[in-house]
Amino acid sequence: MKIKILTLFPEMFKGFISESIIKRAIEKEVCEIEIIDIRKYSPEKHHHVDDTPCGGGAGMVLRCDIVDMAISDNKTDKSQVILMTPQGIPYSDKLARDLTKYDELVLVCGHYEGFDERIRSMANMEISIGDYVLTGGELPAMIVSDSVIRLLDNAIRKESSEDDSFSNGLLEYPQYTRPVSYKGMDVPEVLLSGNHKEINRFRLKESIRRTYLKRPDLLEKKELSKEEKVLLEEVIKEENV
Amino acid sequence: MKIKILTLFPEMFKGFISESIIKRAIEKEVCEIEIIDIRKYSPEKHHHVDDTPCGGGAGMVLRCDIVDMAISDNKTDKSQVILMTPQGIPYSDKLARDLTKYDELVLVCGHYEGFDERIRSMANMEISIGDYVLTGGELPAMIVSDSVIRLLDNAIRKESSEDDSFSNGLLEYPQYTRPVSYKGMDVPEVLLSGNHKEINRFRLKESIRRTYLKRPDLLEKKELSKEEKVLLEEVIKEENV
Repeated sequence: MKIKILTLFPEMFKGFISESIIKRAIEKEVCEIEIIDIRKYSPEKHHHVDDTPCGGGAGMVLRCDIVDMAISDNKTDKSQVILMTPQGIPYSDKLARDLTKYDELVLVCGHYEGFDERIRSMANMEISIGDYVLTGGELPAMIVSDSVIRLLDNAIRKESSEDDSFSNGLLEYPQYTRPVSYKGMDVPEVLLSGNHKEINRFRLKESIRRTYLKRPDLLEKKELSKEEKVLLEEVIKEENV
Repeated sequence: MKIKILTLFPEMFKGFISESIIKRAIEKEVCEIEIIDIRKYSPEKHHHVDDTPCGGGAGMVLRCDIVDMAISDNKTDKSQVILMTPQGIPYSDKLARDLTKYDELVLVCGHYEGFDERIRSMANMEISIGDYVLTGGELPAMIVSDSVIRLLDNAIRKESSEDDSFSNGLLEYPQYTRPVSYKGMDVPEVLLSGNHKEINRFRLKESIRRTYLKRPDLLEKKELSKEEKVLLEEVIKEENV
C-alpha cells in the first residue's frame, strides 16, 4: 500500500515514520509513506495557502484552488482521497479494515482554523477520528495510517491483531505477566494452571465482562455465539448480586 | 500546565513538539511537555520492559512493576495520571475541557501488544480516543495533549476555539475564501453581502443543517435555543421535500 499525506506541517510526521512498527513496516516494504507539503502548490510569492473568511470572522481559511492542485498532482486512478475533518464519518476498526483494500490512500490534512468548503468535493470520503477538536488533521492522518498499516500482511504478528479490542466486537481480555505477585496484586490462578481450555474460557468471559461493564453499546451490536451467551448470563448474575 | 508522557518510543514525539501550534504554545510558556522513556526504569540488563503473557498466547506484555516505578517517580500531588487504552472512557470535546483544569497530566502510553492488567490500578483515569486499534498509546497521548493545549489561555486565538465543531454542540458552519468562483463552484452570495445579521443567520442555519444531516446524534443531545429551533424546522422542511 502507498499512503500519501498532504499537509502544511510535513515536519510533524518525522517521529511517526522513523519509529516503531511503522518504521519496520516501511523497511519490510509492507507500505510506503510519502509526505507532501501543500505549500509547494501555492502560486503566491511567500507560499501563502490561506486567506480571510468570506463574510468575516476570526481565523484564516485554507484555499480550495491550492488544495485542488495538490490533490490532482498526487492522486492516481487507484487512489482513495480522504479528507481528515471532525465532520467526517466516525472512524472505526471496521473502517480501518475496509481501507486496507485500497492500493493507495491520499490523506488530506485540514487546517486548524478551517478550510474552504469546496475542498470537500475533491475527496472521495471524509473521516473524523472522534468528537474532539485538534489543531490540524496531521494527528488524524497518523491515526488512520497507523491503524491501517498494522492490519496489512506482515506488518505485525498475525495473532496479535486477531486478539485486539474491537476486532471480535468485544474489549480485549486482561493480560498479565511477571511478577506473579506485586504489591498484593496477584495474577489470577487459572492463568498459571496450564489448563488451556479453562484459560480460554476465563479470557472470553473476562472479555465479555469488561465489555458488559464498560461498553454495553458494543455488546448490543454484536451477534453472540452460544458459548458467549452462556458466559454473558453468568457475568450478568455475578455483577448484579 | 505540565504534561508528562511516559512512553517506550520517545522519538515518536519529536515532530509533535517541535512544530506548529504546540511548539508555539511551549515557546509562549502556555505549557510544558516532558517525554519520559519507560525503559530507563527497567532493572534488566538490556532494559527489557515486557515479558510473555501468563496463560500463554501471542505477543509480549508490559510489566506492571516497571510502569509503577515510572509513574511513582513522575507524579506529584497535583497530577492526574491517565492511561491511554482502547478500553477507556470515550474521549470527547467535553473531556478535553475538563482536563484543562489540572495543573499536571501524566499520560501513560500503552504497549501495542498489551500491558499487565495491574497497571490500570495505578492510573486515575483511562481514556480511549476511539473504537479502533493502534500500534501504541503514543498517538492517543498526542491527541489528548493537542486537544487540551489548544484550549489553554493564549495557545490560539480565543474566537477560534469558540467557533469549533462540537464546542456549541453542533458541527461547524461552512467556510469560504478566495477565489469567489472556482471551477463552477461559487461562494454563497450572502457571505459577500456585508449584511452581518444575514451572515450570522446563514452560518447558524448551515451549522444546524449539517449536524442534522451528518450527526443527528449530536442534535439529540443538545438543548436548542428558540432561534435554533426555528432554523431546525426550516432545515427539516428543506431537506425533506
